[in-house]
Amino acid sequence: MAHSIKDIAAALGAQAFGAVDILVDGASEPGTAGCSDLALAMTPAYGDALSQGNARVAVVWPGADWKALGLEAAIYAPRARLAMAGLTQMLDKPMSGSGVSEHAVIDPSAQIGEGVVIGAFAVIGADAVIGAGTWVADHVSIGVNVVIGKDCHLHAGVRIQRNVVLGTRVILQPNVVIGADGFSFVSVEPSNVELARETLGNVPMAAPDDPTWHRIHSLGSVEIGDDVEIGAGSTVDAGTIRATHVGKGTKIDNLVQVGHNVIVGEHCLLCAQAGVAGSTVIGDRVVVGGKAGIADNVTIGADVVLGGGSVVLSNVPAGRVMMGYPATKMNTHLESYKALRRLPRLLNSLAKR
Amino acid sequence: MAHSIKDIAAALGAQAFGAVDILVDGASEPGTAGCSDLALAMTPAYGDALSQGNARVAVVWPGADWKALGLEAAIYAPRARLAMAGLTQMLDKPMSGSGVSEHAVIDPSAQIGEGVVIGAFAVIGADAVIGAGTWVADHVSIGVNVVIGKDCHLHAGVRIQRNVVLGTRVILQPNVVIGADGFSFVSVEPSNVELARETLGNVPMAAPDDPTWHRIHSLGSVEIGDDVEIGAGSTVDAGTIRATHVGKGTKIDNLVQVGHNVIVGEHCLLCAQAGVAGSTVIGDRVVVGGKAGIADNVTIGADVVLGGGSVVLSNVPAGRVMMGYPATKMNTHLESYKALRRLPRLLNSLAKR
Amino acid sequence: MAHSIKDIAAALGAQAFGAVDILVDGASEPGTAGCSDLALAMTPAYGDALSQGNARVAVVWPGADWKALGLEAAIYAPRARLAMAGLTQMLDKPMSGSGVSEHAVIDPSAQIGEGVVIGAFAVIGADAVIGAGTWVADHVSIGVNVVIGKDCHLHAGVRIQRNVVLGTRVILQPNVVIGADGFSFVSVEPSNVELARETLGNVPMAAPDDPTWHRIHSLGSVEIGDDVEIGAGSTVDAGTIRATHVGKGTKIDNLVQVGHNVIVGEHCLLCAQAGVAGSTVIGDRVVVGGKAGIADNVTIGADVVLGGGSVVLSNVPAGRVMMGYPATKMNTHLESYKALRRLPRLLNSLAKR
Repeated sequence: MAHSIKDIAAALGAQAFGAVDILVDGASEPGTAGCSDLALAMTPAYGDALSQGNARVAVVWPGADWKALGLEAAIYAPRARLAMAGLTQMLDKPMSGSGVSEHAVIDPSAQIGEGVVIGAFAVIGADAVIGAGTWVADHVSIGVNVVIGKDCHLHAGVRIQRNVVLGTRVILQPNVVIGADGFSFVSVEPSNVELARETLGNVPMAAPDDPTWHRIHSLGSVEIGDDVEIGAGSTVDAGTIRATHVGKGTKIDNLVQVGHNVIVGEHCLLCAQAGVAGSTVIGDRVVVGGKAGIADNVTIGADVVLGGGSVVLSNVPAGRVMMGYPATKMNTHLESYKALRRLPRLLNSLAKR
Repeated sequence: MAHSIKDIAAALGAQAFGAVDILVDGASEPGTAGCSDLALAMTPAYGDALSQGNARVAVVWPGADWKALGLEAAIYAPRARLAMAGLTQMLDKPMSGSGVSEHAVIDPSAQIGEGVVIGAFAVIGADAVIGAGTWVADHVSIGVNVVIGKDCHLHAGVRIQRNVVLGTRVILQPNVVIGADGFSFVSVEPSNVELARETLGNVPMAAPDDPTWHRIHSLGSVEIGDDVEIGAGSTVDAGTIRATHVGKGTKIDNLVQVGHNVIVGEHCLLCAQAGVAGSTVIGDRVVVGGKAGIADNVTIGADVVLGGGSVVLSNVPAGRVMMGYPATKMNTHLESYKALRRLPRLLNSLAKR
Repeated sequence: MAHSIKDIAAALGAQAFGAVDILVDGASEPGTAGCSDLALAMTPAYGDALSQGNARVAVVWPGADWKALGLEAAIYAPRARLAMAGLTQMLDKPMSGSGVSEHAVIDPSAQIGEGVVIGAFAVIGADAVIGAGTWVADHVSIGVNVVIGKDCHLHAGVRIQRNVVLGTRVILQPNVVIGADGFSFVSVEPSNVELARETLGNVPMAAPDDPTWHRIHSLGSVEIGDDVEIGAGSTVDAGTIRATHVGKGTKIDNLVQVGHNVIVGEHCLLCAQAGVAGSTVIGDRVVVGGKAGIADNVTIGADVVLGGGSVVLSNVPAGRVMMGYPATKMNTHLESYKALRRLPRLLNSLAKR
């Protein structure tokens, strides 16, 4: 579907100049833009590339001399990435499919809302409830007693286990698993894990008399708030006797693990391959960098930012910026790191004294 | 299904007091317990919360004054988490479904044991054998010549590739992949990986004459022992000419990678996002913390405990507790870490001399 | 299918000795070889084990006295792992299945090439194109407008989202996800992530007025080059306005994340659980070790080798061997690490002065 430059600018709350009735049906990098594309050249660094493509119209940085850049029309974007959000939403295509596939298996007791789309080979369990306008792709499994809100998007291969509750407008990318059993096992006598924590590794571990791991079943399921998005292949485990919880507006990237009983606050970001171990509590608006890990049973205050690859082993007060393994305040970490880089020379000079 | 306090206590081998014929049908945290829930207040910290909920009965810490806590009956739990294992097992609901779905595709040569449940859209390959009492969820793929023991639980979206052998009572959470091809490639001339290991990075890498990676096929499949559980999205690759092996009683969390040819011992724990590279051997009762990684071709002795996020690059003797990157003995790691934190001040004071 | 020792040697370009007409139909480790197996004893370390098995024929190290090892015939392998590539390819069995399953759902507008195999419950979207000789396993989802080259192998549970383009001979292991939406969100005002990067953590983070994350849609899809292989459960996200790209001949292991807009060069290796954040560019022939992470928007030069578990936070020049968190040159890292191990003793001795 094509949009005029005028309409796009209005939707973005931005200013437009020139031949604002030109229609575009896609967005492009400046150098590869075709004549019906809106080129995105939101910083001066992209100025030169505009001449290499066939762009007639572009989103440019505030104050750019768009005529000198060879354009017929331009939109000024004061905050480039925010403009991207509006633009890409306008230019995106709706989900394909309509109605309920004849190849889906839906339990007669399930309640399917108005306008719901269900793809081929989806399975909807007994007593499940699916809110109006929700789109369920092919190969999705929805367990017994699951409740899904309105206007959700569940992509192919998503697995939702029994009793899970999703809010409205939740997006689950392909192969997400919500509500698998938590990883919770216990030995008859205190285990080596307990012993190692107690002794801080000062005592060698030996074989216990009974090495059997007894399974703690997960009766607690998962609750996902409104406007949550979860990336491909990520997993959120069921709680033990209460629900694992992900707060509204939180966004989770690909291959992230959220353990049983975890509480994730609202409007958090959990970047790719992050992991949160069991029973940990994460405050609102926390950012967990890619590959960062948080130990079990700790509390992360609101507005904390954890750098990519950091490993948090203890509680973190609100508002901290953390890095390292184990994670410390970012400035402490950087100071230690710089000192470490100077250490080999120090040792050499001391050896010479 | 409801259970009496008396019966629950007997099953746990624990003492019960008060009106032990009261029936409960669920477990709950103390503060949110309803009147048919068994509240779990296994440490004194939970005592206050009991009064906020509607619990009539609870599992409490040994010696608790249960009458003063407002309860009508109580169970004493000397080891709280162990009691949880028994309790949650009693209160869990059985898997849904029965019989073989008409929407499954089962090769006529497959042997399906007595009482096997097979869900919608499951695919069972030629010559596969499925033991009695095993439960196969919807969307499970079972390859040719796979052997699955009795009383296994295979959740939705599990992929089992050709020739894999599972023991009895194996539990595979959703989207687990067993027996994918190993990551094993070789170049005609020694590769930069081999060169970097040899030169310890002292020689810059250059482009090889022939950068092609030749594929080593995985002919060896996977063997999984009895009572193994594997978490959502985890992967165990096929061996090259013999099976990759996971020993009986071992529990593997979500998003864990076990490479080709690896041998994992019995009664191990591999926590979320751990990774074990190809051909490594892990002894019995080893605990691998979350996000920990183990390099290829190393040997980890029995009863080793690897801290979360640690990276093991060489052999580890039995009984060691290890941390860090590269992983060292935990006490060595802590000593180095503390020294590092004191280093910036040392450098400052030396600069002033 | 059985092969003679003579034919195997010819295929490997290797020398054969003895009764070279003996037929074998499998490969085995020396100690467990049956009489129709080709034992693999490519280094002297395996010599003793040969006598424990029933091997009549083996691949041995150059110059081995194969008669003294009790063999009737032998092949000399000058580069053991390269021989493994040829051998395992010869001895591998072809994919099972033929033709198009009656249980697949294929849009009438899709173009299916000659000799394509499509398994049960596969879904092929509108306008998809599947090249001749490609094998699509059961439970694969192929989105609208996807183009798949010739002779690809797509294993069970693979998800390919709209508009993705795959080259020829691409292998996708089970549950791979290609073309899920990128993780790209923006707040109205500069976020704490932006603030933390600017202030290097010296300013505590506070709650923003508007914590909402606005979604940047992914319009750009993914292009995968010829001869790429991607491991089980790995994810490659769609680009924003141009395609995310994986160059020809690159091999990606299990549970790897490749973010939106990333460009991965040709003939790279990305080992298990590696992660590449959005918009990063990786040169040709780069090796990314297991669990290594690369931050967003950085450039990795050609022929770089990143050690397992390292975390790259900034650009890396071509040919570097890198380790650590943050990653530095391997020799710098090793020097710092050795110095750190000597530091506790230094602090003690300074305290005594």
